[in-house]
Amino acid sequence: MAIILYDLVGIDDRRFSSNCWRTRLAIAHKGLDCETVPTRFTEIDQIGDGTFKTIPVIDNNGDYVVDSWSIAEYLDDKYPERPPILGGSDGNQHARFVQEWAVTRISQFLFTMIVEDIHAHLTPEDQEWFYNSRSKRLGRDITGVQVGRESRLVELRQRLEPMRSVVRNTPYLGGELPTYADYVAFSPFIWARTVSSLALLEKDDPIYSWFQRILNLYDGLARKNPGYDW
Amino acid sequence: MAIILYDLVGIDDRRFSSNCWRTRLAIAHKGLDCETVPTRFTEIDQIGDGTFKTIPVIDNNGDYVVDSWSIAEYLDDKYPERPPILGGSDGNQHARFVQEWAVTRISQFLFTMIVEDIHAHLTPEDQEWFYNSRSKRLGRDITGVQVGRESRLVELRQRLEPMRSVVRNTPYLGGELPTYADYVAFSPFIWARTVSSLALLEKDDPIYSWFQRILNLYDGLARKNPGYDW
Repeated sequence: MAIILYDLVGIDDRRFSSNCWRTRLAIAHKGLDCETVPTRFTEIDQIGDGTFKTIPVIDNNGDYVVDSWSIAEYLDDKYPERPPILGGSDGNQHARFVQEWAVTRISQFLFTMIVEDIHAHLTPEDQEWFYNSRSKRLGRDITGVQVGRESRLVELRQRLEPMRSVVRNTPYLGGELPTYADYVAFSPFIWARTVSSLALLEKDDPIYSWFQRILNLYDGLARKNPGYDW
Repeated sequence: MAIILYDLVGIDDRRFSSNCWRTRLAIAHKGLDCETVPTRFTEIDQIGDGTFKTIPVIDNNGDYVVDSWSIAEYLDDKYPERPPILGGSDGNQHARFVQEWAVTRISQFLFTMIVEDIHAHLTPEDQEWFYNSRSKRLGRDITGVQVGRESRLVELRQRLEPMRSVVRNTPYLGGELPTYADYVAFSPFIWARTVSSLALLEKDDPIYSWFQRILNLYDGLARKNPGYDW
């Protein structure tokens, strides 16, 4: 039976969640079948026994697992005969560092550049909830937060320098083949691409080529997701 | 025979080079004997056949190797029966990402906070060469560059967030044991500690505890280096 993934969704079937994309690519990396259940923010409390607060959540034949990192560990434990997602101690620590970097230095900064775009691509049921919760997180109304984002884009591209240096020399952060480090680094980009016309990358940036490679993985899994083709 | 390491030196036998410290810790990680040859900037051209422009350089019984990364690879190739420094593909890519992060996001930024301190701790033979080459690199005289560094320290500590998140949960970036990822992340800190009284870390920062752990490794190898005890 396929693994069921509860996957955050906006309008037009847009799957924009960076956290859910990590899991979707991890499942594909394992070569496992996946069925997604499009889920709105305001529907998360209807998953399983109703205790879940965040997604991704997977249901693997009755095993419910929440949190993208825990899911990656679960899949490696459950299917040790398939290609490792995390790759043992070294690969685990590699992915963990890249994840913390991507979250604290990239996604949190990028948030102010796309939060109104996310809002614009949510269903009406989710928009009010999202507006209120994100305004609270920011300490101000999200309306107008994106103003000046072109100058923040310069800073964002500077922050990306460590991964630029790596993918200039190897096709993936993982080396010759992608690993979970690549999926966590990819996740802010697919998040933005799904909802925003703002091109984060210039075409001559080595990260752009890397991004295209990940979009093409697994029969173009991420490329098929509705989004802005930058 | 011990490996000979040509090691950058200032006054009072201060070994301040971040690149040389990576190599010194890598050799200790392998459990190999090391003899250092204190070398001033203006003496680098006297090493070996006189073609070297940078250090570290090692001389392992006639094998001359330059560049800290190449030396780490050389040691793993030459002594595969000893603990790996880079740890195969995953460990290699892990160390590479952390190195690029440490160089492009930490050391280059930290440079403007300690460059006058470095100058103050060089022998007279090196000071003029250093002053001119670093002023050229910065596009201005280094005198006065450190002004305002307290506010840049706030930014530096924010930039350290990815490694803070990791070492909050595991003793080392490598996990339970240190790997080359730790040595490359450590190298900007020992660089600063050797020449500058500016305390980069607060004592309740998880990175502070991690820093103390690395200072203690290999019978206190790095702690014994003359420096400012912050």
